[in-house]
Amino acid sequence: MYRDKTCGELRLSDAGKHVTLSGWVQRTRKLGGMTFVALRDRYGITQVVFNQEKDGALFDAANALGREYVVQMTGIVAERESKNSNMPTGEIEIIADGIKVLNKSEVPPFTIEDDTDGGDDLRMKFRYLDLRRNCVKKNLELRHRMAFEIRRYLDSKGFLEIETPILVKSTPEGARDFVVPSRMNPGEFYALPQSPQLFKQLLMVSGYDRYFQIAKCFRDEDLRADRQPEFTQIDCEMSFVEQEDVIEMFEGLVKHIFKYVKNIDFTEPFQRMTWNDAMRLYGSDKPDLRFGMQFVELTDLVKGKGFSVMDNAELTVGICAPGCADYTRKQLDQLTDFVKRPQTGAKGLVWVKIEPDGSIKSTVGKFFSEDELKDWAKRMNANPGDLLLIMSGDKMKVRKQLCDLRLEMGERLGLRDKNVFAPLWVIDFPLFEWDEETQRYYAMHHPFTSPNPEDIPLLDSDTGNVRATAYDIVVNGTELGGGSIRIHDSKLQDKMFELLGFTPERAHEQFGFLMNAFKYGAPPHGGLALGFDRFVSILAGLDTIRDVIAFPKNNSGRDVMNESPSPIDDSQLEELNLTVTLPKEK
Amino acid sequence: MYRDKTCGELRLSDAGKHVTLSGWVQRTRKLGGMTFVALRDRYGITQVVFNQEKDGALFDAANALGREYVVQMTGIVAERESKNSNMPTGEIEIIADGIKVLNKSEVPPFTIEDDTDGGDDLRMKFRYLDLRRNCVKKNLELRHRMAFEIRRYLDSKGFLEIETPILVKSTPEGARDFVVPSRMNPGEFYALPQSPQLFKQLLMVSGYDRYFQIAKCFRDEDLRADRQPEFTQIDCEMSFVEQEDVIEMFEGLVKHIFKYVKNIDFTEPFQRMTWNDAMRLYGSDKPDLRFGMQFVELTDLVKGKGFSVMDNAELTVGICAPGCADYTRKQLDQLTDFVKRPQTGAKGLVWVKIEPDGSIKSTVGKFFSEDELKDWAKRMNANPGDLLLIMSGDKMKVRKQLCDLRLEMGERLGLRDKNVFAPLWVIDFPLFEWDEETQRYYAMHHPFTSPNPEDIPLLDSDTGNVRATAYDIVVNGTELGGGSIRIHDSKLQDKMFELLGFTPERAHEQFGFLMNAFKYGAPPHGGLALGFDRFVSILAGLDTIRDVIAFPKNNSGRDVMNESPSPIDDSQLEELNLTVTLPKEK
Repeated sequence: MYRDKTCGELRLSDAGKHVTLSGWVQRTRKLGGMTFVALRDRYGITQVVFNQEKDGALFDAANALGREYVVQMTGIVAERESKNSNMPTGEIEIIADGIKVLNKSEVPPFTIEDDTDGGDDLRMKFRYLDLRRNCVKKNLELRHRMAFEIRRYLDSKGFLEIETPILVKSTPEGARDFVVPSRMNPGEFYALPQSPQLFKQLLMVSGYDRYFQIAKCFRDEDLRADRQPEFTQIDCEMSFVEQEDVIEMFEGLVKHIFKYVKNIDFTEPFQRMTWNDAMRLYGSDKPDLRFGMQFVELTDLVKGKGFSVMDNAELTVGICAPGCADYTRKQLDQLTDFVKRPQTGAKGLVWVKIEPDGSIKSTVGKFFSEDELKDWAKRMNANPGDLLLIMSGDKMKVRKQLCDLRLEMGERLGLRDKNVFAPLWVIDFPLFEWDEETQRYYAMHHPFTSPNPEDIPLLDSDTGNVRATAYDIVVNGTELGGGSIRIHDSKLQDKMFELLGFTPERAHEQFGFLMNAFKYGAPPHGGLALGFDRFVSILAGLDTIRDVIAFPKNNSGRDVMNESPSPIDDSQLEELNLTVTLPKEK
Repeated sequence: MYRDKTCGELRLSDAGKHVTLSGWVQRTRKLGGMTFVALRDRYGITQVVFNQEKDGALFDAANALGREYVVQMTGIVAERESKNSNMPTGEIEIIADGIKVLNKSEVPPFTIEDDTDGGDDLRMKFRYLDLRRNCVKKNLELRHRMAFEIRRYLDSKGFLEIETPILVKSTPEGARDFVVPSRMNPGEFYALPQSPQLFKQLLMVSGYDRYFQIAKCFRDEDLRADRQPEFTQIDCEMSFVEQEDVIEMFEGLVKHIFKYVKNIDFTEPFQRMTWNDAMRLYGSDKPDLRFGMQFVELTDLVKGKGFSVMDNAELTVGICAPGCADYTRKQLDQLTDFVKRPQTGAKGLVWVKIEPDGSIKSTVGKFFSEDELKDWAKRMNANPGDLLLIMSGDKMKVRKQLCDLRLEMGERLGLRDKNVFAPLWVIDFPLFEWDEETQRYYAMHHPFTSPNPEDIPLLDSDTGNVRATAYDIVVNGTELGGGSIRIHDSKLQDKMFELLGFTPERAHEQFGFLMNAFKYGAPPHGGLALGFDRFVSILAGLDTIRDVIAFPKNNSGRDVMNESPSPIDDSQLEELNLTVTLPKEK
């Protein structure tokens, strides 16, 4: 028996009990003839006291303990003289009568504290020590609680969790697959699933009308800041449903989790916004609605005044930053530099200050009269003291650029509070995206997304404007998840493949089993997937999903703790009929 | 709105309601001017009635329906004239007033019935139709319920479910890894985890003292009858525990699930048996305790009587088959043939009949006197009417052979009832297994298993007899799971690697990160993993785990439904710096 109590549970009411604790030495403090050991386990920290006068040998043993030693300590629970109200066990301490060192520890390479001295790289290399820190532990505890509660909720709604395979068929459409060579089938490969999409649609064909799975998914993409090669998704599908049914079900889930974790009640339905409005008003399909600063289009007002930048632009559009007319030249230059960064890529920024006295100052004063600029301000609902920030260019590009600027202004004005949550549904996505480079349409979601029934007649005549029955759920400028109603009619599916440039042969090769399945009575169905890592990180108030993953990989897809990926034995390669041919160094 | 009720929920109390159902046409029956459609969804079957006189067009529409059409039907709930007590909805039917065909179906390649006409291969190819059958569906429902209840139970005991990576480091020790080439790290590979073993031990170092995960695991093994390349395991680990703590915790879980699923109360602790006893009495480390027929060793009685088979054998051992003295020559020949099969590989079988009158008949009557044979019978506690089945040979081999025969006799005598469950713990496994071929020791469980503390002094002197602190849980002759107390002392771990023939360099290369982690305060820890597929299949009364997996693979590791694995594009291979070199046809 290593312990009969944890380091988090003793209270004043336990005073007088003889207890055995086990844990790690958080720190030791020697004050004259007394030594205080802070003993830590998963549940908390308890102070254990050693008195030189009472037992010199035991006192010496306590003083010989190093940080992170694993020890068993026994003693009597006693009321503390100086209580610590910051910790749940702060009213008591243990008057020690025994120590047993269970394992020693080398001095850890960084301090095991919330406010550690360890840098990111070091903490990742020693992730097993990083995971000891309370601030990391509480993220994993939250993750556990959320996963459990999501399962409980969906179970209560009649959903079945069904495991789909990890070794699946490679389908080059979409992102890049990770592949797994098959030793038993020489020259052939499995892929790791980018999502359980095809399997969940098959389960609908099979009649499992409410399916979910908290599922690992894999994408071999060049990793941007907040991507991981493997990630976890709450994957769901329902049969005999329309868009409204799916939205209602999962809005219920999201609300439930917000209530459960944050005690936040969303009593009203989440806002819904068409993709067109989201792009027009926020320049993004995942607008951050924690603050306003909606886009206002000025194109008609600005053309023909001799300012070639605006004359030649497809779109001129601006935001009104409230109370920012007092921005200094330096601040305004910073904003201009911000939009000129390669990530944003704008050529410049026009600003117009509405001074408190109503007068106007602007970078474009020589092209536009004060009255004209006042017309801009009026359209933008600007008040004295506000700052207009205006950009011009190609429609889609300038929206993206102004979106970046809007978010930056929200940040600067402190409008992006992590304790405020602004969820919404973005609906009516376009079904197709045109790709200039390859001169073809791509599915904006995936090839199984159903067109809006009203738009089916437009499939050939006005392909680019066909709306999908697709929906994303967005929180604070982040896509939490999305889904669609699927095509369940095999003729319509054939038509989609045709529009996406699949030959019938290639469509059959890639998706033949799904198309075959659809011949045997596919029900109307649709679903959605929520990014679970993302969901946890939003509720934990974190910027990166890495912090809610126990053993994440870095931006090169490496686990720096165990040095994987790594070369494998030649015998392994040989069994797999593979040869590695490394690219020549350049 | 596709439906307002399911096909499983309507009862007599709903009579008079107007309802909308959606589902699949299970069958249609035309009786004169009436047509009865059995409409099926996940929740059941409801009868819908069409009356020619009432609505001829609707009647015709109903008669045009084919099997497995997806339809929406509306009508009034009415009491049936001839009730069907075999189905929960059997007291009512729907008097139809509308049909909408949601999707047609080709005639399915086999009947969607529990007792289907489809063979195994056909059902696997059309797994999405096979999954519609009620008998398959209830296995997946059971799987869902068990997973949920296991999570609930472990959560209530303070366990945290923590996801560990699927893209891990390849470690050639153990079974063969599936590997995943890394595009971003040319020439390097991830492996898919054979289990989360190393990660869960790291989590213990991190202080997460009660971890679990229902985790996918992968082994690239030649697949025997009931193996899958990917399988699911209930993976657990605890800190500050001894063997007794782990056994108690998971015996509690197993008992809870038996109660929950089968309403079986195991009020007594599960039996425990040492590995030595299991091998001696049942010839197996996973004895089926639903019946007796323990092995009885006769070596000392049979030697020196001139029967060279027994004279030269290391071990002569037998079982007593109760009431089988009346076996015919043909039956006895069958048993001899059975043990001579290549899978069992015995050279022969000695039998001794104890006739009802007490007289003896035997194949070895010319070597042994009736009194000598009676001494055998006495030692084996045989009664008149019993049959002794006796085998001789090399100790480990003959035990394995007699084990096969014992199970066969249990089968023949109807003693292996699927509704009887006989769980036990097998303990005190040997730490090492000697491999004749490579002339070295292997870890019987894995290299992190702790020796029994009492046996540590024997590590060098009597390596083969060192007991592990390892334990398996066995039900009805099947290993449900197993685990061990792990080594937490890095010096002892070094010693283990040395005994297992690892150079320090190789040990460091393979397990360096774990050995490093152990330098920073590893707590005493141990755990266990239960085969989840196996657990479900035992409780479902099934012989194969394949039946509890939604999309299983066949014995060649193929998914015959989606034809994976499959060749991949050359461009994919190129990006991965790989060339496939197929073996020449022989």
